[in-house]
Amino acid sequence: MTLPNCETLLLEQAGGVLHVTLNRPDSRNAMSLAMVEELRTVLAAVRTVPDVRALVLRGAGGHFCAGGDIKDMASARATGGDAYRSLNRAFGSLLEEAQAQPQALVVVLEGAVLGGGFGLACVSDIAIAHVGAQFGLPETSLGVLPAQIAPFVVKRIGLTQARRLALTAARFDGFDALRLGLVHFAEADTAGVEQRLAESLEQVRRCAPGANARTKALLLATEDEPLAALLDNAAEQFAAAVTGPEGTEGTLAFVQKRKPTWAQ
Amino acid sequence: MTLPNCETLLLEQAGGVLHVTLNRPDSRNAMSLAMVEELRTVLAAVRTVPDVRALVLRGAGGHFCAGGDIKDMASARATGGDAYRSLNRAFGSLLEEAQAQPQALVVVLEGAVLGGGFGLACVSDIAIAHVGAQFGLPETSLGVLPAQIAPFVVKRIGLTQARRLALTAARFDGFDALRLGLVHFAEADTAGVEQRLAESLEQVRRCAPGANARTKALLLATEDEPLAALLDNAAEQFAAAVTGPEGTEGTLAFVQKRKPTWAQ
Amino acid sequence: MTLPNCETLLLEQAGGVLHVTLNRPDSRNAMSLAMVEELRTVLAAVRTVPDVRALVLRGAGGHFCAGGDIKDMASARATGGDAYRSLNRAFGSLLEEAQAQPQALVVVLEGAVLGGGFGLACVSDIAIAHVGAQFGLPETSLGVLPAQIAPFVVKRIGLTQARRLALTAARFDGFDALRLGLVHFAEADTAGVEQRLAESLEQVRRCAPGANARTKALLLATEDEPLAALLDNAAEQFAAAVTGPEGTEGTLAFVQKRKPTWAQ
Repeated sequence: MTLPNCETLLLEQAGGVLHVTLNRPDSRNAMSLAMVEELRTVLAAVRTVPDVRALVLRGAGGHFCAGGDIKDMASARATGGDAYRSLNRAFGSLLEEAQAQPQALVVVLEGAVLGGGFGLACVSDIAIAHVGAQFGLPETSLGVLPAQIAPFVVKRIGLTQARRLALTAARFDGFDALRLGLVHFAEADTAGVEQRLAESLEQVRRCAPGANARTKALLLATEDEPLAALLDNAAEQFAAAVTGPEGTEGTLAFVQKRKPTWAQ
Repeated sequence: MTLPNCETLLLEQAGGVLHVTLNRPDSRNAMSLAMVEELRTVLAAVRTVPDVRALVLRGAGGHFCAGGDIKDMASARATGGDAYRSLNRAFGSLLEEAQAQPQALVVVLEGAVLGGGFGLACVSDIAIAHVGAQFGLPETSLGVLPAQIAPFVVKRIGLTQARRLALTAARFDGFDALRLGLVHFAEADTAGVEQRLAESLEQVRRCAPGANARTKALLLATEDEPLAALLDNAAEQFAAAVTGPEGTEGTLAFVQKRKPTWAQ
Repeated sequence: MTLPNCETLLLEQAGGVLHVTLNRPDSRNAMSLAMVEELRTVLAAVRTVPDVRALVLRGAGGHFCAGGDIKDMASARATGGDAYRSLNRAFGSLLEEAQAQPQALVVVLEGAVLGGGFGLACVSDIAIAHVGAQFGLPETSLGVLPAQIAPFVVKRIGLTQARRLALTAARFDGFDALRLGLVHFAEADTAGVEQRLAESLEQVRRCAPGANARTKALLLATEDEPLAALLDNAAEQFAAAVTGPEGTEGTLAFVQKRKPTWAQ
């Protein structure tokens, strides 16, 4: 696999995991249009690469992502309203694509997790926060809307929490992020964050890559499809999986009390 | 703005906030048909008034609302089944309208928060409970159904919690209401409740009124509309907001490190 | 009522409650096709029996249910892919039918609550866990999918938690099951579990049987039907209930400060 050249991201592949680091530390990794496009390119590049079992997304310099980039806003202002619309919608496309990524998407949340950064956290499969991280939706306090992220925030933490956070621009920390169900883990220090990350990646590697990709697609489909049709389709997929190479190896390894090939 | 004359409600406007107090303390503010109609009239009266940034709904005499009014029930019984249906459906219309109210709706929950009172809590943007408040859905223990409130309860706390509460008529306190995600805050005493209310209103005032109204509508729409269309529409709204007066003032104030006009 | 003869289940009726015990302790009550069919037969047999107010589902030998049965898998393999599909889909039908059962469905969760056992827990009205119970979705670690249970898991604990659990096959205990909203109670020991069960059944008996059945159907319908139509229908049902025998007895008993007939 050839990884794309990126100006705003650091990429590192190791042990079946692609580590993606937002790398604009001077602006607390504010989400520029260039960064949005590079992230979309990276997701597309690894989408069908079975060697990549998980992606880890984090930020350089102690922050995850402080939201949209003010400079891009300024140049869009010069160009006119259409540029704002395109800029905004492109970020929504990134969220849609990240949500549907077949690999497990892990986010490491430190420092600022605001606006668009908050939105990215909402499409992860595993979210690990430092307790000191600062979460919030500041948009309405700036006179604008959390436009593209709104549906992903409601899906993630429910309408009840989303409405208070969006209408007050309140900040909260990693403990509260855990309590609200935004993240899966809140760790007291950097060592705890790294240990949890290593453990989570180890757990993902125990699971068959194809089964994981199909299961993720199935879980996402439950939100849209009628139940009976979904269950019919799931039964087809189950039969295909259990008679396919992963199901054959997985059940054999279980009986033989050994690790399956993908977990070695 | 001229506020309507009300027999069952106390109204007080101050600092961009309309305080609405259910005022039938002798019956623990049981929801009479007159009270339902007065609440709907008040919501309609302030719906398009930009000076009203938030509504605070609470009850007189130490209780929020103990549910439907038994006397109205008795007179409906004399009139026949149609009267029950209209009475019940009118309360559902109140819940629909309160849910869609453009302003932030804050509820202060003390004492009895039962049946219809529970339903009102479920459509709030910010819910502040006294830990000693008593929540519950007693309908089935009276041989009737939590009919109009059922969809709002499921939306608020999820099917898992709603089904147990409705099928057992179990009571619970403010701590559990926080744990179940019914409320945002559970405060140990009255002073704590008032302090949290003041802080929450201050946070709402930091947010632009138009942006808040459009954000609330957007969050509610995420439950019904397909994702791609929603994101397209949200991008339009974002472009309009950022180039409009609130977005212009908000981003300028941010750069100039001052409060925007609406926050002063 | 005549209860069906069962080879894989123990059945006991007492005090308006049908106790159903999964009874294949040698395989930790693994869900065989025979057990699926017997459970479906039992649910159908009591569906319209008003004397049965609640069902209690638990497992013999210290485990609830460890998932699908490996032997059934093996014989399905001999028969071909179609057998897998039918086997899988039959379990989904069981979950659909258990979800819609008019009576309150209570589950007691001890020991292994894995795969299909996890799915059964997700359709209960009241879930009582021993803290030491072991929950998990091991399917992807075996190269297969949590196919039929996926929609019920997402409905129960939300997409955020479901995706992590399914893509990591992580195990967790009763405390975490409570925190994730999978269960309503996590009890420290067997005595605590039994006491909570007795209390919950007592609460169910305080509620009118017909009102409970219609309320449960109404809560489930909120997930699928448009709001306005649902509220119209709910108002009809409310009027019918309040003027019917349960509503008449319930409100009269309330005024007379005595227990209604169904609670005695």
